[in-house]
Amino acid sequence: MSTKKKILIQLDSDPHPSVFDRVVAVDAGAEELFAYGGVKPDDVEGLVHGAMFTRGPADLKHTAIFIGGSDVAKGEAILKKVTKTFFGPLTCSVMLDANGANTTAAAAVLRAAKHVELSKVTALVLGGTGPVGQRVARLLARQGATVRLGSRSVDKAGPIAAHINQTVESQNVAAVATGDEKDLLGAIEGVELVIAAGAAGVKLLPAAVRKETKSLKVAIDLNAVPPVGIEGVDVMDKEKERDGVITYGAIGVGGTKMKIHRAAVASLFEANDKVLDAEEIFELGGKVQ
Amino acid sequence: MSTKKKILIQLDSDPHPSVFDRVVAVDAGAEELFAYGGVKPDDVEGLVHGAMFTRGPADLKHTAIFIGGSDVAKGEAILKKVTKTFFGPLTCSVMLDANGANTTAAAAVLRAAKHVELSKVTALVLGGTGPVGQRVARLLARQGATVRLGSRSVDKAGPIAAHINQTVESQNVAAVATGDEKDLLGAIEGVELVIAAGAAGVKLLPAAVRKETKSLKVAIDLNAVPPVGIEGVDVMDKEKERDGVITYGAIGVGGTKMKIHRAAVASLFEANDKVLDAEEIFELGGKVQ
Amino acid sequence: MSTKKKILIQLDSDPHPSVFDRVVAVDAGAEELFAYGGVKPDDVEGLVHGAMFTRGPADLKHTAIFIGGSDVAKGEAILKKVTKTFFGPLTCSVMLDANGANTTAAAAVLRAAKHVELSKVTALVLGGTGPVGQRVARLLARQGATVRLGSRSVDKAGPIAAHINQTVESQNVAAVATGDEKDLLGAIEGVELVIAAGAAGVKLLPAAVRKETKSLKVAIDLNAVPPVGIEGVDVMDKEKERDGVITYGAIGVGGTKMKIHRAAVASLFEANDKVLDAEEIFELGGKVQ
Repeated sequence: MSTKKKILIQLDSDPHPSVFDRVVAVDAGAEELFAYGGVKPDDVEGLVHGAMFTRGPADLKHTAIFIGGSDVAKGEAILKKVTKTFFGPLTCSVMLDANGANTTAAAAVLRAAKHVELSKVTALVLGGTGPVGQRVARLLARQGATVRLGSRSVDKAGPIAAHINQTVESQNVAAVATGDEKDLLGAIEGVELVIAAGAAGVKLLPAAVRKETKSLKVAIDLNAVPPVGIEGVDVMDKEKERDGVITYGAIGVGGTKMKIHRAAVASLFEANDKVLDAEEIFELGGKVQ
Repeated sequence: MSTKKKILIQLDSDPHPSVFDRVVAVDAGAEELFAYGGVKPDDVEGLVHGAMFTRGPADLKHTAIFIGGSDVAKGEAILKKVTKTFFGPLTCSVMLDANGANTTAAAAVLRAAKHVELSKVTALVLGGTGPVGQRVARLLARQGATVRLGSRSVDKAGPIAAHINQTVESQNVAAVATGDEKDLLGAIEGVELVIAAGAAGVKLLPAAVRKETKSLKVAIDLNAVPPVGIEGVDVMDKEKERDGVITYGAIGVGGTKMKIHRAAVASLFEANDKVLDAEEIFELGGKVQ
Repeated sequence: MSTKKKILIQLDSDPHPSVFDRVVAVDAGAEELFAYGGVKPDDVEGLVHGAMFTRGPADLKHTAIFIGGSDVAKGEAILKKVTKTFFGPLTCSVMLDANGANTTAAAAVLRAAKHVELSKVTALVLGGTGPVGQRVARLLARQGATVRLGSRSVDKAGPIAAHINQTVESQNVAAVATGDEKDLLGAIEGVELVIAAGAAGVKLLPAAVRKETKSLKVAIDLNAVPPVGIEGVDVMDKEKERDGVITYGAIGVGGTKMKIHRAAVASLFEANDKVLDAEEIFELGGKVQ
């Protein structure tokens, strides 16, 4: 019987560790929160050793690590360093959700799955080369969807699509150009699901194009800052029907995202060897939403 | 029924967030403390969004913000940014007590009210242009007192007195020079209450002048570091009679200040829309002391 | 009857306050942890005032200070500043364990005491001029041991040995050169206990020399990073017999170190006037191991 408190170590690359992630951690049941801001990969080893060497292997599941911060690439570098520091049975569970990218991508794909069959759907991911877009494409491809990875430049999207195909061992992902209306009309033809995961304030899909896409069933916009990415979708939309299309805005997806985020943090304390990245968080989300 | 923990977010402009404010927060019942040091106005939006978007409107009263740090002007700028970031029902209660200025001013005026009728008193505030002095003058003026705002330079005190009059919609505050003994003798004539709120270690009222002031009933010195601001008053004085005058030193006022500080923090969690600045803290102090 | 929460204020000279020390503090029963990184002696006064002035003298035992960080000299400077800041009855208990030096030295000497009589033993401390080595020598000398303080340069070890003799009011400590095998053979002659406290990854005692030392009964190596300091000792060794010598490695001593660390933190909250440095932690360790 162990009475060790649940400690969550928050490693955040931003100067001030995220209030958002801290509140969710508290609400998810973390009893002690060690919040670190301005964390660089070189800082990781010492911090993680402190987690590894203080509680016996049987109690290590009560210590877990959360990696946040607004920069997803930095978060990924920290995660790599964390898992590399572990050895033998001296591991803690760890979760990556820098910029909310994993929980957001998981929530978007799980909402989509309520309306289309992922293994058969043809999907277009707008802003597909960004951290959230790549994760959305990865999750869709793993479910067997045919994925078009949209980007202004197909030269930029190409290698990323190839990398995702390699990761998920499929040929499901293809790069498409979506930089102007003509490109977009080609890219969206026959698409049933569109998910916009672009930078804040960039209009990715004009209403005119959307309305011409007869095949479209579901449109999910993950951008919360106006102008939204899919014209005509409201940030509050949640299963809202607009012109025969089911739409979601960022806040409409937010409830699912938050539920997944909390469940993922809570699950860290069930074992000492979990590594929660996009796929694991998506799988977990499927059980809790 | 909500079981959300009470989270206090401490925004402090000093590099290390105040231990003093953290201990008081714990003793006031905050269950989780997110302490941030080196906070600049530009950092505020992201941090406050994290508070706004993590708990539903019904639960937002369990998240509150405390603004501290030794620099009152910086604290005021942070408060401005915090309230500007809120929108719709997504607000948290917030309290400003940078450098303890609000709780100290409230405590001093509340102690004075035990001995004189504020609406009829003539008061001199020494060090009146500093952050505590301005707050003391504001609180006194609101209660209807006739206030003389003392400063070495009447040119400096003038605009501040005018600003306070405008804020409290009165003509109760007048600037007076208190730079030398001659000025002081004029400024203090007919005064029943003197409150010294100057910089640490500056003697503002020599014993000789104080003894000549026959009208004086109450002398409160808020400076804890010797030499004290009012010569002959001891930092431990609490309702101490000296030469017919009731005196208070900084530590004598400290018990009341601490009680107000704790009550103010505790009250933040009663609703999600409180903004506690000098006046609100003074009012709350009147109920708890 | 007091219900004040136990607050531990962690002052750490490293940029990120130690995860290790935080986990131990939580497991030792600290209910609130105020962790400060990048603490400089000049920061101490303000932070300590916040501890002194927030709870009445009767409740000050519920607030305590832990000084950590990887740099022992900086930790000592912070401790000095902390105790200098206290006055009158306004004190908190404080513990120094920068780089784990005090708990490690105490654990090593306490393990040795299980196998040899400290008051009669002749001991060699390798890496004796470093922070852990100096503490080991101090503790041994206080128990009456004959101590040889080993260093590559006897010129460096001489003044340190003299300083320790002065501190413990004895002539028990003598400097010896241990830089090459010939020096070592002289230094270790007749020695029953050897404790290696050198820098990580430096081999201080080759197997050949150790095997020639017929008098040797106990060998303790405090270095956890290969190559270990005493050739042939494993980091996991705990009372392991090797060639007739009882050996300990760093992890073998770690259990005792951890028990002492936890007990020391817990004991801070029993009174408000403890100052726990090497000797006090050693004494306390004798009761709990």
